[in-house]
Amino acid sequence: MHKQDYSISSLDTLFSPRSLAVIGVSSDPNTIFNAGNLFVEALQDFGYGGQLYLVGNSGGELRGLKVYKNIVDIPGDVEYAIAAIPNQNMPQLVEDCGRKKVKFIHLFSSGFGEIEDSMGTGLQREMLKIAARYHVRLLGPNCMGVYCPQTGLTFAERFSRTAGHVSYLSQSGGQSIIGIREATQRGIFFSKVVSYGNACDINECDLIEYFTHDPDTGIITAYIEGTSDGARLYRALKEASVKKPVVVFKCAATEGGRHAAVSHTSAIAGSNKTWDSLLRQTGAIRVHNVKEMFDVVTVLQRCVKPEGLKTLVVGHGGGTCVQATDDCCRAGLTVPLLPVKYRQALMKIYFTDAGNIFKNPVDINPYWGMEFAGEAFKAVADWPEADVILIPAVPEQNPFRSREIQYQIYVDTFIQWVGMSSKPTVVALTVNTMPGADGLPERSFQKMVDAGLAVFPSVQRAATAVHRVYQYHQWLKKHTSKT
Amino acid sequence: MHKQDYSISSLDTLFSPRSLAVIGVSSDPNTIFNAGNLFVEALQDFGYGGQLYLVGNSGGELRGLKVYKNIVDIPGDVEYAIAAIPNQNMPQLVEDCGRKKVKFIHLFSSGFGEIEDSMGTGLQREMLKIAARYHVRLLGPNCMGVYCPQTGLTFAERFSRTAGHVSYLSQSGGQSIIGIREATQRGIFFSKVVSYGNACDINECDLIEYFTHDPDTGIITAYIEGTSDGARLYRALKEASVKKPVVVFKCAATEGGRHAAVSHTSAIAGSNKTWDSLLRQTGAIRVHNVKEMFDVVTVLQRCVKPEGLKTLVVGHGGGTCVQATDDCCRAGLTVPLLPVKYRQALMKIYFTDAGNIFKNPVDINPYWGMEFAGEAFKAVADWPEADVILIPAVPEQNPFRSREIQYQIYVDTFIQWVGMSSKPTVVALTVNTMPGADGLPERSFQKMVDAGLAVFPSVQRAATAVHRVYQYHQWLKKHTSKT
Repeated sequence: MHKQDYSISSLDTLFSPRSLAVIGVSSDPNTIFNAGNLFVEALQDFGYGGQLYLVGNSGGELRGLKVYKNIVDIPGDVEYAIAAIPNQNMPQLVEDCGRKKVKFIHLFSSGFGEIEDSMGTGLQREMLKIAARYHVRLLGPNCMGVYCPQTGLTFAERFSRTAGHVSYLSQSGGQSIIGIREATQRGIFFSKVVSYGNACDINECDLIEYFTHDPDTGIITAYIEGTSDGARLYRALKEASVKKPVVVFKCAATEGGRHAAVSHTSAIAGSNKTWDSLLRQTGAIRVHNVKEMFDVVTVLQRCVKPEGLKTLVVGHGGGTCVQATDDCCRAGLTVPLLPVKYRQALMKIYFTDAGNIFKNPVDINPYWGMEFAGEAFKAVADWPEADVILIPAVPEQNPFRSREIQYQIYVDTFIQWVGMSSKPTVVALTVNTMPGADGLPERSFQKMVDAGLAVFPSVQRAATAVHRVYQYHQWLKKHTSKT
Repeated sequence: MHKQDYSISSLDTLFSPRSLAVIGVSSDPNTIFNAGNLFVEALQDFGYGGQLYLVGNSGGELRGLKVYKNIVDIPGDVEYAIAAIPNQNMPQLVEDCGRKKVKFIHLFSSGFGEIEDSMGTGLQREMLKIAARYHVRLLGPNCMGVYCPQTGLTFAERFSRTAGHVSYLSQSGGQSIIGIREATQRGIFFSKVVSYGNACDINECDLIEYFTHDPDTGIITAYIEGTSDGARLYRALKEASVKKPVVVFKCAATEGGRHAAVSHTSAIAGSNKTWDSLLRQTGAIRVHNVKEMFDVVTVLQRCVKPEGLKTLVVGHGGGTCVQATDDCCRAGLTVPLLPVKYRQALMKIYFTDAGNIFKNPVDINPYWGMEFAGEAFKAVADWPEADVILIPAVPEQNPFRSREIQYQIYVDTFIQWVGMSSKPTVVALTVNTMPGADGLPERSFQKMVDAGLAVFPSVQRAATAVHRVYQYHQWLKKHTSKT
């Protein structure tokens, strides 16, 4: 296959095009669902700052803008095009875009290398040839494109306008959207997100290399199904990991998944064993879904570096604390016994350990008063052995208090505790699957997120994320002391 | 230690006492938090149908009932007592209850075998001696007691009044409450729940044996930290498993967890290896938290028996389906390729596989019309190879549609699909951690639960539950064909 060979900096325009044409819109008022129209709506509502042009067979006007019948008819320059037209018309469009000196085409449409019919692969090859001739670069096909809050690029109107320092490349459009939504709700914001689909031209290596050198990217996250150049990916990941954390959700890891990936994005997924060792050697942090991805980012952004795995578990609820300890140990952390000195300090505060546990886990009841809880936390939090502090709680476990009070006391106590801690400290607030429709758990999470806490919906997820970040730092230490 | 030796049927009164005394109430209007008062409130509001008596030093009157200063002052019989008084007063109370011919005392209070101070163990031993003398049986100490919707026993006013066929024994009070709340929201209701704490007399074996022979119990669930009689537990579990499924959340499975359990319920947790083989040999279904416990119950109650592990994945979203396939395979299911005949049938319905996957996973877009989606499901659902059908979806993945429409179309489609399926069929609807406070995901789950569907918040959990139920049936086949 043809492969454009440009320098990394040439991707800049992909994220900050001064002009953009959406191709495949319809001005027909009877149109019910038109992807082109939806892109226009999203871009306008989101506030894309460049020059926006529309192209569609209908001509006419849409949302206050003229609809040109062909991209070549547009009077001004077009740096970036979003193409949502039938697959068989795509080669001609690439030709037209080439003549118009478009720099990047985002091919939204599917029906190329990923379908069973060999016509799809033929079309993809043809587009690439034309694109090479005109030096136009292709994103996709079969993907959602670019989200960049700083420049107003988006593929959904309801994404956050706040820019951050995480960049995310995703072979799947759906996983890119889920990721953005998951992250946003947890106080994680993006510099750049690219849904890159079949990767016929711009691929995971291009994007990782670009993000490695991008000063606005502090953490790279990636959903990858397959690669066509394992050696380059290895180099790209390793170079990136030395500079900034790279979190990789490698999907299509099983045999069934690999079949699926071919039909999804035409990806050649490769064996899981190969990927596992590739990711381990390059320092990439491997996760198995989007939630775990942003669990890791949460620890990276909201916790100081964990210097070891010894964990102090301080929370509320006997069963909760026993389970939390199991879950920590299963995730690779250790929960060593608290020295007598600290246990005595807790006895001095509470007079009895009846109804509490003072051993690590430390189970203290914040309902007995926040002053006591604060004093108790302070008494154990500076135990020099502890590398990490994990705070577990399950608000729904209290039989008598109102739900409002349960959540409120936990949230207030944990915000107080984290404020007193100088160690990596994570909060695991476990709620029911369907906690009723009153929004109380969500509001409670949000309050902690807004206060800067690293919050997780289970101990298992919190502990796993901490362990993964610790392992990354271990890798980094080894690979930076060498160089 | 003393151990009462009664026949199984003698536990009947524990669940249906005709008279009940709550000991440790206060009629002082300035009382802020009194566990006895909260039990009274809960029992009255919940509608306990027997004779309710109150006992407390204050005397006077509370919530329309006379407060007796001592249980022996009560004019009528008392079959069951709930004792929420300081630990050091407990032996005298057991003595008084003995004289009053109380049959069961639920010892709510903590500060016995589980605390560091040997006084606690001493008190526990003393109580047991007195209880043996009077033939009164002890539940606890350090536990929440009994929830039995049929007879109106409860330890929280907000538990469901609907009775079902699951019974649940829990060494942890918190885990019993979490379990009840988790289950109720998923359409799972209880016959009997017992939080049994330190198990100084009534223990996990008594309860499992009772539930095995209880005609109102169809499924036994258990949260266990430790046992003092492994051989009896082995026999009890094996006898139970042959008759009905037993789901066991064995906590304190790690070294850290075992330290914690001693301080929590004085449990001797034993090695995880021993437990693992004990549970496997007895046919118990092992889970690692309360959510997984009711995942298994959901499959048991809402799916026909899985005859094998071959899974047809039919859902929406490319990345979602690839990940779902991975998650199924990781959980022990298999996702074999769909034969050409079925793929052709799907092509006939949709004309193209662009934007879809027709291989298993089958990725079809319900937004293209529910008639199409229904026809497509029908075309693959009767594939004789498939033992299980798993339906994955992530509503938040759609960029353009309103959330309301996304959820609604999924819910309607999946209810339609499950209605057409004669195989064990599970729905995995993955939502964000904090899906905003509009209650839409919760309402959508509830709608599917109410329609009888087996719904899970992730493929991993759905697939794991199916796999566990399949393994139980394999065990059962082996152990019932032998006898």
